[in-house]
Parts: sequence; C-alpha cells; structure tokens
Amino acid sequence: MNRSNGGAPHRSITAGTDFLHLAIEEAPGGGKSDWLASRIRLALADGRLPMGSRLPATRVLAGELGVSRGVVTEAYQRLIEDGHLAGRGRNGTIVVGAPAAAPKSPARTAPPLPRSVFAAAPGTDVFDTMRTARARIDLSPGLPDLAAFPRAAWLRTERHVLDHLAASDLGYGDPRGTPALRRAIANWIARNRGIRADPDEVLIVAGTAQTLTLLGRVLRDDGITAVAVEDPGSLGARQHLHNCRLATPPVAVDSEGIRVDELRATGEAAVLLTPAHQFPTGVVLRGSRRSELTRWAREGGGLIIEDDYDAEHRYDRTPVPALRSVLTENVAYAGSVSKLLAPALRIGWVLAPPRYRDALVDAKRFTDLGNAALPQLVLAHFMESGAMERQLRHLRRHHRHRRDAMIKAIGTHLPSAIVHGAAAGLHLTITFDAEFADTELAAMALARDVKVHPLSWHSQRAHRPGLVLGYAASTPSDIGEGVETLGEVLRRGGAGPGFVR
Amino acid sequence: MNRSNGGAPHRSITAGTDFLHLAIEEAPGGGKSDWLASRIRLALADGRLPMGSRLPATRVLAGELGVSRGVVTEAYQRLIEDGHLAGRGRNGTIVVGAPAAAPKSPARTAPPLPRSVFAAAPGTDVFDTMRTARARIDLSPGLPDLAAFPRAAWLRTERHVLDHLAASDLGYGDPRGTPALRRAIANWIARNRGIRADPDEVLIVAGTAQTLTLLGRVLRDDGITAVAVEDPGSLGARQHLHNCRLATPPVAVDSEGIRVDELRATGEAAVLLTPAHQFPTGVVLRGSRRSELTRWAREGGGLIIEDDYDAEHRYDRTPVPALRSVLTENVAYAGSVSKLLAPALRIGWVLAPPRYRDALVDAKRFTDLGNAALPQLVLAHFMESGAMERQLRHLRRHHRHRRDAMIKAIGTHLPSAIVHGAAAGLHLTITFDAEFADTELAAMALARDVKVHPLSWHSQRAHRPGLVLGYAASTPSDIGEGVETLGEVLRRGGAGPGFVR
Repeated sequence: MNRSNGGAPHRSITAGTDFLHLAIEEAPGGGKSDWLASRIRLALADGRLPMGSRLPATRVLAGELGVSRGVVTEAYQRLIEDGHLAGRGRNGTIVVGAPAAAPKSPARTAPPLPRSVFAAAPGTDVFDTMRTARARIDLSPGLPDLAAFPRAAWLRTERHVLDHLAASDLGYGDPRGTPALRRAIANWIARNRGIRADPDEVLIVAGTAQTLTLLGRVLRDDGITAVAVEDPGSLGARQHLHNCRLATPPVAVDSEGIRVDELRATGEAAVLLTPAHQFPTGVVLRGSRRSELTRWAREGGGLIIEDDYDAEHRYDRTPVPALRSVLTENVAYAGSVSKLLAPALRIGWVLAPPRYRDALVDAKRFTDLGNAALPQLVLAHFMESGAMERQLRHLRRHHRHRRDAMIKAIGTHLPSAIVHGAAAGLHLTITFDAEFADTELAAMALARDVKVHPLSWHSQRAHRPGLVLGYAASTPSDIGEGVETLGEVLRRGGAGPGFVR
Repeated sequence: MNRSNGGAPHRSITAGTDFLHLAIEEAPGGGKSDWLASRIRLALADGRLPMGSRLPATRVLAGELGVSRGVVTEAYQRLIEDGHLAGRGRNGTIVVGAPAAAPKSPARTAPPLPRSVFAAAPGTDVFDTMRTARARIDLSPGLPDLAAFPRAAWLRTERHVLDHLAASDLGYGDPRGTPALRRAIANWIARNRGIRADPDEVLIVAGTAQTLTLLGRVLRDDGITAVAVEDPGSLGARQHLHNCRLATPPVAVDSEGIRVDELRATGEAAVLLTPAHQFPTGVVLRGSRRSELTRWAREGGGLIIEDDYDAEHRYDRTPVPALRSVLTENVAYAGSVSKLLAPALRIGWVLAPPRYRDALVDAKRFTDLGNAALPQLVLAHFMESGAMERQLRHLRRHHRHRRDAMIKAIGTHLPSAIVHGAAAGLHLTITFDAEFADTELAAMALARDVKVHPLSWHSQRAHRPGLVLGYAASTPSDIGEGVETLGEVLRRGGAGPGFVR
C-alpha cells in the first residue's frame, strides 16, 4: 500500500471551489473578471449550468476563489447584461438563457400509442408504459384513494420523529428495519391479521415487489426452480419471479380458491397465493380448501408465499385470518402500506419461515442495507398512535362508495358482464360470456382515454375475456364515465377488425 | 377461472371487526360483555395484544360488532379492574399487563464481545456486528457529522413538497426516480463534479451499496465474472461484489493511485475505483496515472465503476473532476447523500455507460420498483434551492476542525503512526512501521470502549498494520480521548499474547 505521507495537510495550497472546479491560478494577471465570466459562459454553453440553475453567492465564490467580491460581482453583472443570468435579489443569481452553442436536451420520449401497449405480450416494462400512457380516467387496479393520504398527520408525525431522533439514528441501521417499526408491524398484524410474531421475526422491505425478489433469490439458492402461481394471478408477481429465474407453473382458481389437487399434481415445493382476496378474481380461500392446503404444506414441507396485499379492505364480509396465523413454519407472509397509505412510500414487511430467515436478511442487506430510517419511524408512530386504524376506516367509507358506483355503472352500461370479487379489496373483475380479445377492448378504451387491465395479462391459460377494474383511486363520476365508455367501446367494437378472436 | 358471482355484495352479512377478528355471532345470548372480556383476556395471554398496545375506541368497536357501547365499556372496565388495561382519557385504553400465561419475548441478543468481532475473517454481517457492539467512542470510518443533519430545513422542505404534491405522485412511479430529483442530481454533478449528463441518464438508487448489487447483477448477465479492486480497498464493496458471485482480484495502490500496469496484467474487463479520494489510503488519482487508466478503458473497452463516495469533502487541496466527466462510455458513476446528509436516507445515484443503461433500470425495477417518492422530492428541492451547498460548507468547517483534532492527537499519542489521506474525506488511515496484528489492536481498543477498523479488513494482501479512523462523526474531545486510548493500548499491548504476529 501507499506508505508515503503525501496525504497530510498542506495549508499553503488554495482549496479552490467545487463550482465548475475553478482555480484562480489559471486567471491571467489583472483580468480576473474577464476570466471568470468566460469560464461561466463556457459552462452555460456546454450544458454544465442548465437553465434555472443557481450560481453561488458572490461573497461565497469570492471567498473560495480567494479574490475580492468585486471580481465576482463584475463577472455576474456582465453575464446579466448579456441576458444569460438574472439577479433575483435574496434568491440569488439564476441562469435564464444559454449562449447559442448550448446542446439541446434530447426530446422526451412521447407517450406510447394505445394500440402498441396491448399489441404484443406484455414485457417487463408494461406497467411503466401503462403509467406514462395518457388517459383522463385511470381504472387500473392496485391503488387506494391517493387523495386521502393523510398529509397533515404524516408531516405532524415527522416533526415529532425529527424532534426526538438521536443523531445515531441517521447513520447506517439494522438491515432488518428500525426496532420501532418492526414492533409496530408485529402489533398491527397481531391485531388485524391474527398473526403472533416477535418483532425480531419481522423484516422491513421496500414493498412486496422487493419481498418477491429477495425470496426468489433465497429460493433459487435453496435449489428451488419454480413457484406455482394462481391462474388467473398477478402478472407483476409472475414477472418478479421470472426475473429470479423461477418458472411459474399455473394452478387453476375456482370459486373456493386455488385447486389444491392441481397444486399437488405440479409437484412443486412452493406456491404464491393471495388467500384473503385472490388477485384478480376476489375469491376467498376458506374452509375445506384451506385445510387441504394446510395438509399439503405440512405433509410435504411445502412453502406458501402469502401475498396479503389488500386484506384490510373489506366491505360486506367477515375478516379471514392470514394463513400465517396457523402455519408459521410453512408461510412467508408479505404485507405492505401500498394499499393502506400509498405505494410511493415503498414500505412493506415479510415474515419468513424460520429456515429462510437469515438468508433473507442477508439478501436485504446486500440489496440496500435496509430501508430508509425516517419514513420507518414516522410509520411506526403513525401505526402505534391509532392513526392507521382511523385512516383505514376513512378509506373503507370512500372505497365502498366507489365500489358501489362501479357496480351500478356496470349494471347500466355493461349488462352482459359478470362481476367477481367485489366484497373486498380495491378492484373487481368482470368477465364476458363471449369470444373476443380483451386486449383489443383495453386498447380501444385507452384510445378513448380510459385505462384498464385486460384479464389476459393476468392469465397464463385460455380463459373468457375480461377486465380488471380498480375503483378505489377514482371518483364516482369518473368511474361512471369510464364504465360508460367501456360499454360504448364494447358495443361498437364487435364490428371492428381484430376485436373478435 | 372462477365464473360464479360469489363475490358480489351481500349487504345482510355483518362486516365484523378486524380487531382480533371478533364475530358477535359467537357470543352467548345475554353475556356479550363476559364474552368480549374473555376474548380480549385470551389475546392478552397469547401475545396478540402486547404491552403498550392500544384498544379500539369503545364507540368504534361497538359499531363494528353491532352491539351497544355499554357492552364494550363494561368489558374494558372489567379488564381495567383486573389490572390488564388502563384508561388513558383521550389517549384511549392501553394494555398495561398480561395474565400469567403470556409468553415472554425472547431475550434480545446480547452485544458481541470485543474479541469475537475481530477473531475470525470478517463475515457478511461484520458491519452489523460492529454497529451493535457497545463502545463510548466510535471512530469507524464512513459517517459525516450526523448531528449536523439539517432537521428543520428538511421538515420545512417536506411541508412544501406535501403542500404541492399531486395525488398521483403517491402512486407507483418511474423506477428510475422522480424527474425532479434526476434533474437536481444532473445539475449537482454538473456544478460540482464536472459531469455533463441529461437527467434521463440518472438512475436514483438506495445508496451505493445498491448500485454495486444492481451493477453486479447486470455485469454477471453480461458474462463478466470478476471486478478488479484497489488493494487496500473497501471491505464492504468487496462483499457486495462477492454476493453477486463476482471475484475481486486485488490491484495495488501506490502514492499516485491504482497501478494501471497491474490492472492490465489481471486481464479483467472491469474495475472498481475511488479516484477522487481512494478508500482507505486517501490517494488522489491524477496526471499520468489518470491518462494511463483512460487509455486502458478506451483501448480495451474496459468498464470503470467510479465510487465517488466523499469527493465533495475537501480541505487543503483543489477539486478533482470525476473520471466520468471525460469517459462517458466507460464509466459507471456512483454517488450518494450518505456522506453529504445521512446514510439513513438511503438515496444515491448512478450514471451507467450507455450499453448497460436499460439493463440497470430493469434491475432497479425488479429490486423495489424505484425509490420512495417523498424523500426524493424533498431532496430535489433541497438541492435546487442551494440548501445543499450551504450544508456542505457547514460540514466542511466542522469536519476540518475534527480532522485537525485527530492529527494533533495522533502526533501526541501515536507518534510512530504514519498518517495517510487527510487532505480530504471523512477519515484518515494510519500505518505502523512494525509487525503486529492490527485486528488485535482494534479488539483491545473495543474492549476499552473505542471502535476502529483494522486496516486488514480493507486489505486482501499482506501489508503493514494500520487503522482506518473516521473523524467526521465524533467531537474533538471524543477524538482526543479515543486516540489517547489507542496510544495506551499500543504501548501496553506489545507485551500481550497474540498482539505481535
């Protein structure tokens, strides 16, 4: 290694400034303002100082360069006179125009055309494409009422957290999550999901998408090459498993939930399930099917990944305890705040079976060293203070109202549609007793400003055409208008090319 | 798929309550309060309602169960009289004690003994172990002055962001990061690091640890099996690469930086570098060595991962532009706020070479669907308003003062130590012209309440004993005391068993 003492301090050297890496040694004698103005002009021209960026205060830059303040003031003044900069009083000096040589920013990618979104089998960026597609009404599933996010309460809680934080809480933390949030989650799932867990068993993650990727890695390392999935079932979840090089053999879902006999027949050692509210059909796994599944797991040592994505949202049915509450050794339980507060928080939790716990913590450590601390502490306080239960009650009222509006609109505008799974959750599924390509229906709806998911996206095997419709994030009037558009498209579309398959 | 209409709403069914999944149908006629109290008692005993948890308001629970409020009030009252619950007025009813049958929480893991931390080769959890080890003075490298985190400004900015946020900003976002932060980062690295980049090239990640794991995955998929690293070089970075199943052949660092002739000799296609302030030696890569490296990258299409971890912290030297500023096609540039604000924010950025850009976005998408939105928007505003530059100037004054205190203390208490790399950064390295195990020195220091990293952790090949000492996160008096302890340990330790190797 380097044994010299070259790194020790040399006080005589000018430290210089980070701003454009200017070094006053380069300025010609007596022409410092000229030199500074030309260096700034160059940075304006080559894009290092884009429009709207702010220049250092004259006092600060002069100090860092070791020149008098007048040198900097004069250089700025000259560029203001040229129309490149503008003085904004206390707000400093701002770039308002660049010399002619400045490179243009490349044109932003135009939003995709409706038909192209649905033309081919959905790729890994399909949800990004959907998100950037322009549409006035968005009935994509998966979002709660985002306008109901408790901004004031969140900010209030954050102030409390920042007031009481130790400086060391801002350093590197436990990759499993902050103790406060792990305790709050253990309490939450005990109260609401019937699960008894020690906080030490809870791993905080960046949402269920991350749970699937971390678990996928751990399962691959354990020699597992496939995870059976419900069919229909979430396209996004399947993509995450594929990304971990896991196959996803489909297992049929009927009116009682996953067909455990079919699951047995696959011979796979792991299955991904949404037992409380199957995605997308909304079926609840109960009674005998639940016992059959428990037997499958206990007898063969099978692993169940329980995606409890929207279990807290119920309207007209009794709650169903999580599978994890009876099957600790065989269930990896996954939850998140994406449907309780907002997906943009990127906070979720996973309870691994004991055999995978350490490997999962290791996977989390290498992925990001653990979730960010501040939002975890805010959420912990939010949950422990009872604010989360209040938020959930508030959301339920909103969502039920919106769900009812959607069912009413479907009755009026899509009388041939069969509605599935509307007793709980944030979405419902409709199917049609007919033969056409639902991707075509979704494409035509998008061309008329309404976003929906075709059921085909969430199906691996042949099925009746259908749509998966989110209602929680749209107003009742947008829901009514959106469903009306779907009805019009469906009636007219029957004559169009490619619509009937 | 499920074609039944079983999921449609049934208004006649009681929705029930999530709280303990209570169903009033199970209560015997006339004994509802008894039944409720016994169910709650059971939950207290089996741990579903741990100490300190809050019960639902009587009005709310009564409504959800469909009973009169008096039923709930009476049940709560009985448990209050038994000493299990306590009424806290407006703060609700709280669990204050459990019946005898309640399971005890398992004892928390005791902090590790000093010697065990350093006894064996460091494992993947070594930094977690170090973090939880008890010590009054922490001179581990890698942290800025956390007490200087701008809490008030952060909260003020967050209020502004929450006031101006669109509801859709709380949904699923661009996996590359919010446009506002990508623009702010492009401007920051243009102003401070000489890099011209379009915001579309910036990928927001959860810190440099995540950058290494995402890049590692992408490089593996591209057929690369090893990334050459500096020796000495960061142990943490090496662990991340190993986790991606990449080998890390060591390349020597001398007083001018990495030995490019040795790098060529490895025949590897990729190298991880810390050019602006080599970790841990503090050497700056300049002049001819920089040109040599540029030739290596251009001629062979080599990839440089530039870990620009603390380049903004300079004291007595001129700034060095990033390698990325001259080598766009060959450099993956990684930065973060961990050393500017706090590691607990878990926000970083990476600029990939064009050939890896799409694969890296895909890897980020599958890892977590992108960073959380709120902290990104707060940071963007913080950077664009000039608050970050102010924070950096403030930090520099603190850090320089602490650096000087450490150099002074070393001169007094460790006169035989050679100091390296103190002109910039948050740490310095000392080496000894002697023969002993620096892990033993670190273990004895930890036994005396002082945490330091032995240089061996960050070295793959034989080297002089040394320590890597962080000064930025400790007060001058703690630094003085810590270094004094190191001096005492070194003087006495010479006689101890196992110290001399």
